Amino acid sequence: MSADDFPALAAQIRHFVGAQGFMKLLGAEIDLLEPGLCVMSVARRPELLQQDGLFHGGVTAFLVDNATTTAAATRREMDQRVLTAEYKLNLIAPARGDRLVCRASLLKPGRMSVVEARVFSLADGAETLTAAALATIAMLPGPVRAG
Amino acid sequence: MSADDFPALAAQIRHFVGAQGFMKLLGAEIDLLEPGLCVMSVARRPELLQQDGLFHGGVTAFLVDNATTTAAATRREMDQRVLTAEYKLNLIAPARGDRLVCRASLLKPGRMSVVEARVFSLADGAETLTAAALATIAMLPGPVRAG
Amino acid sequence: MSADDFPALAAQIRHFVGAQGFMKLLGAEIDLLEPGLCVMSVARRPELLQQDGLFHGGVTAFLVDNATTTAAATRREMDQRVLTAEYKLNLIAPARGDRLVCRASLLKPGRMSVVEARVFSLADGAETLTAAALATIAMLPGPVRAG
Amino acid sequence: MSADDFPALAAQIRHFVGAQGFMKLLGAEIDLLEPGLCVMSVARRPELLQQDGLFHGGVTAFLVDNATTTAAATRREMDQRVLTAEYKLNLIAPARGDRLVCRASLLKPGRMSVVEARVFSLADGAETLTAAALATIAMLPGPVRAG
Repeated sequence: MSADDFPALAAQIRHFVGAQGFMKLLGAEIDLLEPGLCVMSVARRPELLQQDGLFHGGVTAFLVDNATTTAAATRREMDQRVLTAEYKLNLIAPARGDRLVCRASLLKPGRMSVVEARVFSLADGAETLTAAALATIAMLPGPVRAG
Repeated sequence: MSADDFPALAAQIRHFVGAQGFMKLLGAEIDLLEPGLCVMSVARRPELLQQDGLFHGGVTAFLVDNATTTAAATRREMDQRVLTAEYKLNLIAPARGDRLVCRASLLKPGRMSVVEARVFSLADGAETLTAAALATIAMLPGPVRAG
Repeated sequence: MSADDFPALAAQIRHFVGAQGFMKLLGAEIDLLEPGLCVMSVARRPELLQQDGLFHGGVTAFLVDNATTTAAATRREMDQRVLTAEYKLNLIAPARGDRLVCRASLLKPGRMSVVEARVFSLADGAETLTAAALATIAMLPGPVRAG
Repeated sequence: MSADDFPALAAQIRHFVGAQGFMKLLGAEIDLLEPGLCVMSVARRPELLQQDGLFHGGVTAFLVDNATTTAAATRREMDQRVLTAEYKLNLIAPARGDRLVCRASLLKPGRMSVVEARVFSLADGAETLTAAALATIAMLPGPVRAG
């Protein structure tokens, strides 16, 4: 498999991400997967909120963690696996709304991939920017694993 | 309420954090609350893991988010509320083990509190450092709410 | 002075930033100042390099620190001063070239402004992305000071 | 050369860091170099200040950048070079005083080393914590070069 066969890589990534227990617990979904891009989102449920009825900061962090790693994985080579080294996120506005969406895009591929993310909440068809993030994802030699 | 009455503040913080749907969904607990310190942890369950059987990075992020905010809240004044502005975390080692524990300690109290966190996994009584973080928590005037 | 009188605010910002000894030592310049935007750059000199002839990481950090704070200052109110709370930067590619340029743009104005920055090196008219950053700038009540 | 011959490694690191034009421009010095530890500092001069007479944030960033990379370099293997991937720093208190000192210590050695730093200002023999940072340093195969 290689970047020449993106559909196969994408299917593998979806398979591995889908096998995460935490992904299922939150009910998150991959909405879009393209080379260098991942959009991931989750619907509002009481279990995902904090005490004021907003999406919990930990849900934002989960989306940032998973979407940035997955965006980097869309450009990995055969025989590489991805590993989140670190990320930083700014919580910008209260995460109200019906759905929380994270768009992660690769700024720089490579052994130390750099990925940027934006998180939006959706309400009545309008988007509000609720968080911004910057992540470093390592590409390591090793058995192929996604996410 | 003030820093002079820490038990009352601690009770209020525990009440508010306990009211978070996401805290309950993960089954996380506050293990220790002292002025400038919060220890929070969660037990291993399949729902909290990623595809390789490790604690999901999003669980680490949740603990960091919640424990750093709560550590800052232990030093808030009456008529203040805390708001997580941002944090950065490094994932240092695979989060294996039976329990994931986050220790957050206040480096600098004030309007822009700075909090440091360490995350450890516990297995067979031994601790492994799995993540390190640095967070900025804003103290805002407003109705008293906890972390 | 207010956002209604941007030229006066811009003149004040340029005056204060120009009074920084470190700005002069590096020979940095403000290339552009608009509401929510600051472009700052510095020309290559041996004194700004590391041992391999690249711009030193500390020069990149200086530009990020100063340009993000200045971008936030373009939206401050009368009787406010700006204070850099924190930032995170990723070094993406070697900073070769004749000039290092930082573009900082405000993602979110307010008490806790969030600013994004990109750093480019220029060589033979071509740009290379060398760093990306995300910063938090506090707006505090107090005597008007820039930068 | 290897960790078995730390004095030789330390001499090489001092040689390379001493060859940085920017290090000389600022007048910074390595005060201490031990396996996993680097202390670097700079004396107050008007050229290193901002408009209010404090050490410029860019000086803090320079020390953090250089000291964290150097701390990681103390544990590199033969045939490895170090490369700063990213760092995040919180400015905690005004950097007054006669000298600015950065202590960087390795939290985790390896291909993706994680280094923590604290910056202090010294005045009348007393220390004030002015900044805290967390950095990721990559260890890459390649010709031996220092920090």
